[in-house]
Amino acid sequence: MKNTTLCYLQRDGAYLMLHRNKKPDDENAGLWLGVGGKFEEGESPEDCLLREVREETGLSLTSYRLRGVVTFVSTWTEYMFLYTADAWTGQLTACSEGDLVWVERERVGALELWEGDRIFLRLLAEDAPFFSLKLVYDGPRLTRAVLDGRELAPEP
Amino acid sequence: MKNTTLCYLQRDGAYLMLHRNKKPDDENAGLWLGVGGKFEEGESPEDCLLREVREETGLSLTSYRLRGVVTFVSTWTEYMFLYTADAWTGQLTACSEGDLVWVERERVGALELWEGDRIFLRLLAEDAPFFSLKLVYDGPRLTRAVLDGRELAPEP
Repeated sequence: MKNTTLCYLQRDGAYLMLHRNKKPDDENAGLWLGVGGKFEEGESPEDCLLREVREETGLSLTSYRLRGVVTFVSTWTEYMFLYTADAWTGQLTACSEGDLVWVERERVGALELWEGDRIFLRLLAEDAPFFSLKLVYDGPRLTRAVLDGRELAPEP
Repeated sequence: MKNTTLCYLQRDGAYLMLHRNKKPDDENAGLWLGVGGKFEEGESPEDCLLREVREETGLSLTSYRLRGVVTFVSTWTEYMFLYTADAWTGQLTACSEGDLVWVERERVGALELWEGDRIFLRLLAEDAPFFSLKLVYDGPRLTRAVLDGRELAPEP
C-alpha cells in the first residue's frame, strides 16, 4: 500500500507530460503521465505534491487543486492524489525520470497511457467535481473501474 | 504510514460518537471519535468506509460525503479520509471497540477529544469545502495545524 501524488500542470490548453523513458525498471516505463511521486513520512498530500513537482520540473506551484483520489489496484494498491495546477514560479528543468513535454490536451489521448488514465483525464477535462475512482488492473489490462462507488461499463 | 476512514453519522443535529473504552491498548483509549478504521488491501476509500461502518455499527450507509483528508503526524503518519453520512439502512448494533452514543453536535466539544479533532469538527459544522488538514502531535499535544497548506495559529 502506498500513497502518491500525480499532477497535471496546465498552460494554454496543454498538459505537461512526463514520458517515463529514463529508468528501464520503472513500472511506468514507456508510458506518459503527469509528474509526482511517493509520499515521504510525515508529508501531507500537498507537501508531497510541492516537493515532487519541484524535484521533477524545477517549478514551485503557486496554484493547484486536488481533483480526486484514484485507487490503483494491481499487484500492489496505490492511492494517487490527483491534482491539476495552473500557476508556478521558476524555470522548467530536465527530469531524471523521463522527458518533459507540453502536449495539447486534445492530443494526450494519442499517447501511450495506462488505460484507466483516460477515464480520469476525461473527468479532468469535464471539470468533474471531486471524485474517487477505483481502477483494477490485471497486468496492463484494466478489468474494473468504479467511480464514486458506481461500477463503470467497460470503455468501447 | 497507514490510511484510515473516519465517519460522523448525522441525525437530528447529533453525531454518532464512539467512546473508545473497550480496548485498553487502543491508541485512542478513553477518547471519543466517529466510526471507521484501517484500509484493507485493494480497498478504495469508500470500500473501507462502508465495511468499517457496517462492522462497527451494523448500519449500511446509503448517503455519504468525503469532506476532507486529515494527515495525522505522530510517532506514525496516518491519512484519515473524513466522511459525514446522513442516510443508512439497518439497526444500530453494539461495537466491540467502545460504546456508540448519539451526541448533540453542540455537546461534542465537551467530550474528551484529540485536540485537532476540534478543528475538523468546526470545519464540518461550517460546511467548509473539501479540505486537507495536517495535524502534528507531540504525544497528546497538538503542535502544528496546517489547513490547505496554510499554517493555523494555535487555538486559544
